[in-house]
Amino acid sequence: MSSEFVYINEVSPRDGLQNQKTILGSQSRLELIRQLIEANLPGIEAASFVSPKAVPAMAGAHEIIEGLVDTNECEISVLVPNMKGYELANAAGAKVISVVPSATETMNQKNINMGLRETIESSCKIIETAKKENLKTRGYVAVAWECPFEGKVQESIVLDIANQMLGAGVDEIILADTIGAANPSSVTSLFNKCVSEFDHQIFSAHFHDTRAMALANVCAALSEGIRKFDSCIGGLGGCPFAPGAAGNLATEDLANMLSQMGYVTGVALEKLPAIVSYCREQLQEPVGGRMSAWLAKAN
Amino acid sequence: MSSEFVYINEVSPRDGLQNQKTILGSQSRLELIRQLIEANLPGIEAASFVSPKAVPAMAGAHEIIEGLVDTNECEISVLVPNMKGYELANAAGAKVISVVPSATETMNQKNINMGLRETIESSCKIIETAKKENLKTRGYVAVAWECPFEGKVQESIVLDIANQMLGAGVDEIILADTIGAANPSSVTSLFNKCVSEFDHQIFSAHFHDTRAMALANVCAALSEGIRKFDSCIGGLGGCPFAPGAAGNLATEDLANMLSQMGYVTGVALEKLPAIVSYCREQLQEPVGGRMSAWLAKAN
Repeated sequence: MSSEFVYINEVSPRDGLQNQKTILGSQSRLELIRQLIEANLPGIEAASFVSPKAVPAMAGAHEIIEGLVDTNECEISVLVPNMKGYELANAAGAKVISVVPSATETMNQKNINMGLRETIESSCKIIETAKKENLKTRGYVAVAWECPFEGKVQESIVLDIANQMLGAGVDEIILADTIGAANPSSVTSLFNKCVSEFDHQIFSAHFHDTRAMALANVCAALSEGIRKFDSCIGGLGGCPFAPGAAGNLATEDLANMLSQMGYVTGVALEKLPAIVSYCREQLQEPVGGRMSAWLAKAN
Repeated sequence: MSSEFVYINEVSPRDGLQNQKTILGSQSRLELIRQLIEANLPGIEAASFVSPKAVPAMAGAHEIIEGLVDTNECEISVLVPNMKGYELANAAGAKVISVVPSATETMNQKNINMGLRETIESSCKIIETAKKENLKTRGYVAVAWECPFEGKVQESIVLDIANQMLGAGVDEIILADTIGAANPSSVTSLFNKCVSEFDHQIFSAHFHDTRAMALANVCAALSEGIRKFDSCIGGLGGCPFAPGAAGNLATEDLANMLSQMGYVTGVALEKLPAIVSYCREQLQEPVGGRMSAWLAKAN
């Protein structure tokens, strides 16, 4: 049993909602964020300053950040795909920005229409600019274990991208298993190399539960000293085939496991089922991790 | 990456089907078992010699075991709740029997209408009798981590029950998280004590995925040297609130994770989706672990 603090960064307003059939307006997303703040989530990825033409579900980022400008009890971050996105985020009053280079050539092309080298250069330039302007910066490495187009990713490439972003002054590196293809052995292997080379405190992990291994992967990362994780209320995200069948690691599943293991997250577990219900009503489809199904049955 | 063999014992014909709304006749269950044997499951819990009045879904155990008497490629086990059940199982030609004492007074009363001490004595007597008659014996400890009636279970009680069954000559001890309440820390703690006191090779683990932690618990057990696990095709079992929301650890999720981690199970992963579909058709309700949803989407 550990009594250490584990930081949960909630990603539903961005990663959870960007691909859903139903698009939620910015007021509905602000209401979701308000509920998440009340449940004591220490960090929330609130919006993406991507083109609304490219991702219609993320329209209204400016309005969302303006609505949260007085939030102090929770760290609000926004995703910026490029320098234009960064400038818009900064103008809106964002205090924490995330860049998301992928570890492979093809994924970067598909995701932000740039090659690998160009994406890393762009990400590092955004990080440097944001640092100068006193914003906190988060650097993802997407498809850090496996790419849907290029397959298994070499660990050395992930470490090299992390190294470059750290050189640019990034505050946090998040390794993302974007398609839910990592397994506990590969998580152990990659994070072991990361913490051998860099301070473990700068790392965070972002897992998807596509193949049911998200919590097992969290445990593998915990064993390597990782104490920050992304998760998403209701396990939203991805393209679910069946209720709970894919998507991000569910916040209710993560927060419950960490609590059961003795870790401290600060998250108000008892407030999560109502937030899952809100998402279900708003999206008009079944959502929810295993823990929310269990809670609904228990109550 | 490990290349060790991990033994998967498939429990769908018994634990998976005993509580479903739809009761499958013995011929339907024999067809399921035939498909599981073809998918190279090394062990299958095929039936329960419990009173058909108490558990109607398990009627026809004799017929099932007779139908499998020539099976050599797979270890077929049956559950026996008491000496009468053992005698019926032996008469039918069973080669491997399982006894299932629970770790708490109340759970034994609810499950087999005997107190804790009486249940252990009865289990040990069955084990001794079976050994004399050259049957292989498996001894479960149900609710080994937490009991729905008495809460957290003391580790010393579980070790004591294991010790008594080992004294009676049992071949295998299976610690069962009957209600899916164990977490990776409590799994590590209990199995660590078990393998400190006894040979790790005699232990197996039986997890439910009620709160999404089954695979994380498997990893915790693997780290303690456990190499035998129960699982259930489609994640059947329990009282599902939503598709995949409860029940046993799904065989497709377990076999996939072990394979991804480099372990050898012998299980033909590619044959599992059709077996999930068979269960879905027979039970006329949604079933399937996350991996089967992923495979269905991928194909």
